[in-house]
Amino acid sequence: MSAPQWVRDLKPSGPQGSELLEAERAKSAINISTLSTFLFTNEGLARKRRVLKILQSEKVFDKSQNYFAGRIDRFETALARAKRLRQIAVRHGWSNEDRMAANDLISEPGPYGLHESMFLITLRDQGTPEQHEKFLKMAEKYKYIGCYAQTELGHGSNVRGLETTATWNPDDKTFIIHSPHLTASKWWIGSLGRTANHAVVMAQLIINGKSYGPHPFVVQIRDLQSHEPLENIYIGDIGPKFGYNTMDNGYLLFNHVKVPHISMLAKFSSVDLKTNQYKRPASASLIYGTLTWVRSTIVMQSGGVLARGVTIATRYAAVRRQFQDRDAQEWERGENQVLNYTTVQIRLLPLLATTFALHFTGKAMMALYAANQKKMSQDAGKVGGPQRGAGPEETHSGSDLLADLHATSCGLKSLASYTAVEGLEVCRRACGGHGYSSFSGIGSWYADYLPTATWEGDNYMLTQQVARYLLKAARGVLKGSREPSNDTEFILTNFLSRQDTGAAFDILGNDADLVAAFAWRSAFLTFEALKHRDEQKKAWNDLLVDFYRLSRAHSQYMVVKNFYETLQSTSNELDVETLAVMHKLFRLYALHTLESEASEFYTSAAVTVRQIQLARTTAVMKLLAEIRPHAVRLVDAWDFPDWQLDSSLGRYDGKVYEDMFYRASELNPLNRVTVDPYPDSGVLFKRNDAGSVKPKL
Amino acid sequence: MSAPQWVRDLKPSGPQGSELLEAERAKSAINISTLSTFLFTNEGLARKRRVLKILQSEKVFDKSQNYFAGRIDRFETALARAKRLRQIAVRHGWSNEDRMAANDLISEPGPYGLHESMFLITLRDQGTPEQHEKFLKMAEKYKYIGCYAQTELGHGSNVRGLETTATWNPDDKTFIIHSPHLTASKWWIGSLGRTANHAVVMAQLIINGKSYGPHPFVVQIRDLQSHEPLENIYIGDIGPKFGYNTMDNGYLLFNHVKVPHISMLAKFSSVDLKTNQYKRPASASLIYGTLTWVRSTIVMQSGGVLARGVTIATRYAAVRRQFQDRDAQEWERGENQVLNYTTVQIRLLPLLATTFALHFTGKAMMALYAANQKKMSQDAGKVGGPQRGAGPEETHSGSDLLADLHATSCGLKSLASYTAVEGLEVCRRACGGHGYSSFSGIGSWYADYLPTATWEGDNYMLTQQVARYLLKAARGVLKGSREPSNDTEFILTNFLSRQDTGAAFDILGNDADLVAAFAWRSAFLTFEALKHRDEQKKAWNDLLVDFYRLSRAHSQYMVVKNFYETLQSTSNELDVETLAVMHKLFRLYALHTLESEASEFYTSAAVTVRQIQLARTTAVMKLLAEIRPHAVRLVDAWDFPDWQLDSSLGRYDGKVYEDMFYRASELNPLNRVTVDPYPDSGVLFKRNDAGSVKPKL
Repeated sequence: MSAPQWVRDLKPSGPQGSELLEAERAKSAINISTLSTFLFTNEGLARKRRVLKILQSEKVFDKSQNYFAGRIDRFETALARAKRLRQIAVRHGWSNEDRMAANDLISEPGPYGLHESMFLITLRDQGTPEQHEKFLKMAEKYKYIGCYAQTELGHGSNVRGLETTATWNPDDKTFIIHSPHLTASKWWIGSLGRTANHAVVMAQLIINGKSYGPHPFVVQIRDLQSHEPLENIYIGDIGPKFGYNTMDNGYLLFNHVKVPHISMLAKFSSVDLKTNQYKRPASASLIYGTLTWVRSTIVMQSGGVLARGVTIATRYAAVRRQFQDRDAQEWERGENQVLNYTTVQIRLLPLLATTFALHFTGKAMMALYAANQKKMSQDAGKVGGPQRGAGPEETHSGSDLLADLHATSCGLKSLASYTAVEGLEVCRRACGGHGYSSFSGIGSWYADYLPTATWEGDNYMLTQQVARYLLKAARGVLKGSREPSNDTEFILTNFLSRQDTGAAFDILGNDADLVAAFAWRSAFLTFEALKHRDEQKKAWNDLLVDFYRLSRAHSQYMVVKNFYETLQSTSNELDVETLAVMHKLFRLYALHTLESEASEFYTSAAVTVRQIQLARTTAVMKLLAEIRPHAVRLVDAWDFPDWQLDSSLGRYDGKVYEDMFYRASELNPLNRVTVDPYPDSGVLFKRNDAGSVKPKL
Repeated sequence: MSAPQWVRDLKPSGPQGSELLEAERAKSAINISTLSTFLFTNEGLARKRRVLKILQSEKVFDKSQNYFAGRIDRFETALARAKRLRQIAVRHGWSNEDRMAANDLISEPGPYGLHESMFLITLRDQGTPEQHEKFLKMAEKYKYIGCYAQTELGHGSNVRGLETTATWNPDDKTFIIHSPHLTASKWWIGSLGRTANHAVVMAQLIINGKSYGPHPFVVQIRDLQSHEPLENIYIGDIGPKFGYNTMDNGYLLFNHVKVPHISMLAKFSSVDLKTNQYKRPASASLIYGTLTWVRSTIVMQSGGVLARGVTIATRYAAVRRQFQDRDAQEWERGENQVLNYTTVQIRLLPLLATTFALHFTGKAMMALYAANQKKMSQDAGKVGGPQRGAGPEETHSGSDLLADLHATSCGLKSLASYTAVEGLEVCRRACGGHGYSSFSGIGSWYADYLPTATWEGDNYMLTQQVARYLLKAARGVLKGSREPSNDTEFILTNFLSRQDTGAAFDILGNDADLVAAFAWRSAFLTFEALKHRDEQKKAWNDLLVDFYRLSRAHSQYMVVKNFYETLQSTSNELDVETLAVMHKLFRLYALHTLESEASEFYTSAAVTVRQIQLARTTAVMKLLAEIRPHAVRLVDAWDFPDWQLDSSLGRYDGKVYEDMFYRASELNPLNRVTVDPYPDSGVLFKRNDAGSVKPKL
């Protein structure tokens, strides 16, 4: 199906994409390699190169048919890739980091996804040594392949409302796992639909007629040889989704299925074999901590997730030319690069700034978490653990900081995943018509990322936790019984003490003041919400919208603060030129956010109307112009290999149109079909050589 | 693959979806049938029922495999449907309205899409009688099946920049159609990829070395028998897209292809056969008018497009229950309907209000357009056409109103399609995890609708036209030479005269004042922009962001005004109860928009900070509570048959979970595959009975 010679001879008109990107890279003196190292470390960059080389050498990872294949072919290929990846990992002795780097590069969810994350983690963290021996060992050898079955058809966020039951039978010392209603069906469970032979099932533990809430049970669900479902178990794939179609999300129903005592993961709580009594969990703080860790990871990843879209859209905006500049001089012939239009800059450059803001924030959260874990284990080493109520020192205990970190991570997870989701779609649209083509590489990436806004806590539900924490902190500060023990208490105290004299922040001239304006607004909204709840006794439900806004405001403050502090503390790792641009990105992120949320900043009297007007009409526009020449180098620093982006529009070499054309004309199986177009003919395809569109393995 | 008996016996737990929706419908006294008639007329509703019955009786229109099939199967089915629809239309003697009703119900783009719209319209409107005889007749018989080839790989919005050439050869009186570069390839052309055998090709007309800009040429591109591309023509499908995959958007390249003189559509301009001279177009106002008409249609449709998502999300939010209300009384057992949460209401109910706002605005625009067309043709009937410069009467001439209507339609098209796109995604997410399933019916609908934001004028580019018009009007008003001739001039004049005394609108107590506040903000931003351009001499490019905001502000004013006026003028068509709720929806739309755009309202001094705070914390929250009981009946009034929605979540009878489960377990072909999950086994599928997933025809 090769094109005729006259087609193959055609080139894009005007300056070539490669020339335009070369010119862009020549405009800026940003040191890409230094900046990449600052973002990812040398070790991380070297790992990526090493893993990429291996993946590119294996036919099964070839991506050229990804955008064409239908659901079943894509799933089959994803399964083949998962198997091969496991073989490679064994052969090369890959670390967990190596495996994650490979997943990043492959960039599609796979059928082992939940086995390699939640299934193994849960067995490890919540199993006893005996259970490790029985389940974990087999799982680590991929004899048992598992999933994590929590969500039900009728129950998402509300874990306490799960309907699946595990009823203890004291006579034969077993549990009966049962699905009493259709809505009890496990649903959305990754790796369950076709792949897993085991599941960790979250079910209501019932002993002697009394319910003890959801607990984890390890249940075999498919035969190890035939891979058919076991008796009284009904399993399947839940069908196609907006994205994530390489994953077999599944459903699962139990009809009074008996499992032995050892099936209940018993590290924290268990049923005593002799007394048939429930044993209370030792401590929930470990799980509490894990969730905080997972959310911090989502925050950090959100920067990179968004950066893929920004990279593609920015490079394409430098290659794509449309219209002449209305005010252009005679000698500026030809069409203008789209990246020169302020309507494009105002969409892309604040998002470019956001990628760094989110990355630094996630990194800082993870560092804080690690430091705190270390501190807590030191505290725990002392006799009796951390002292409570023992004066000011107590206020800096690990558990206090963890509460702050936990609440912060909820709000930031919500803000960061929302920002990445929205931002990717802005990037896609900023590519104009071609953004709609699968070859843009943004659509499928966006669609696969979308569920992040729902899982690990729905983005709306989570904000209640932030509000609850801030209200509690505000009540404490109002009592004024002790010194502020963390940053949240500090900004609330500061607001109270300066409330009457007013703010007067120099947001346009002073970076620290810009951060302070965000803190001020967050504190203002906290005390407003407190007044509504505690004084005016408003219903919790009537305040959910306020709480959402409050969480968003506080999280934006955290991002601005972390961006600022990263630049303050690491100035020696970057050269002067790069650091200067990073400072501009910081200001762009902060001022653009501030003017987008202007009304809360007015209302709290953090800034004046005049300041906002100046931010909007002058400061932001000036920053756009200053950052513009560095845009391509800044996205280059994110260091995405072309193989990872899989995008015609985002190619490093700018050969956008050649690549679009090649994929459409040479790779597209629909072009191997000839139709009969006439309405009165019953023939649809006169010729159909399309064949299967799964990648050749 | 039928489920075992114990699975088939299962029911959802708690109150059933059907009971919950019945209870919702009992809560409100809104007369659904009256409201539906008000929206669509009795004739429109009857047509829908009649057409639906025919479609449901034909196997080829069965939708049950739509969400499962891959690209090639979906295209094949779409082709079969297009053919069958044409046969039915002939047999039943369908009108154009009947055909459009059928397309709405089928709800997927089809391979005849561009033939039946742009190809036929262009031949009709721009062809001479001779060309009608040669091309249109054959096209109406579906012997010629066509498309409209304007956009190129390197050129979207900028029609003047098209690269394809049509060079006049005076020797043999032919045109040579040629693609000089790869970027000249026609691209995105609907119905071209596999279906069309003719195209209207927009190409730069070149006579004697001089270019006369883009003109339309009818070109045969495929053989009428074999359907293979003709010599020196390279055609194909451009590959998969984010949506619209039932359509064969195509590419097209020409290598010096010769076409006769009659190929250039010559109603407005032509090449004189004898003199070889170019004949100038008679008037461009007809095309100008058509675009205005198309954009008004998009505005009106956007209400219905969004209403599909709102219908699905609202019904599901009444069926879905999560968590107990924190402040719930003892006796309120069980989980709370999601629709009772204010975080859900604040997302869905303003969108519900928006559906009506957009529908009424589009309807008003189309009525205005029709009235104006009538007036213009009357004016044209007078000797010498409309008088110019003849005093105040002149200011109400049709062409003046058309200029206003044209500019307004640009801004409204941008706002309305943007609002529908964003709103659909909000609806999808408001459905929680299940919104991500294809069975929600929102994802694919959203993905198919997305391009509307780009075509018929990119939503960003269009806003420049609005700004240009408003600036011109403002300059006229400043000169003060005549009375305001249309609403835009009126609000600008009014602003100027009251600017110093201030606004003081009673937005919370008076509906007319609420509309006036929107007018005030629009006028304020217009004069601001004028100052930047004319006094401060800012570059056009530096003002694009301001222009975008201005267009948005002016368009929101138009929507608020049209919603208000519709309720004022048609109060006798609705019963008192329904009209009262419609007024609340008007206020919700206006106040929610106002507080979302708060900073522009402050800055213009249209409202005070205190008013906004009251709008946000009190008025909007109160309206949500008041509208909440009517939500399900209001979406019912949009009158979408289940067959059209094709959504588990949006079912009229509330059987959400039963339908989700049925589709996943019974219709899903992936469940007819058994995998070998072990990494060391080379077998992927042990059994594969999935077969083809195209609907059985």
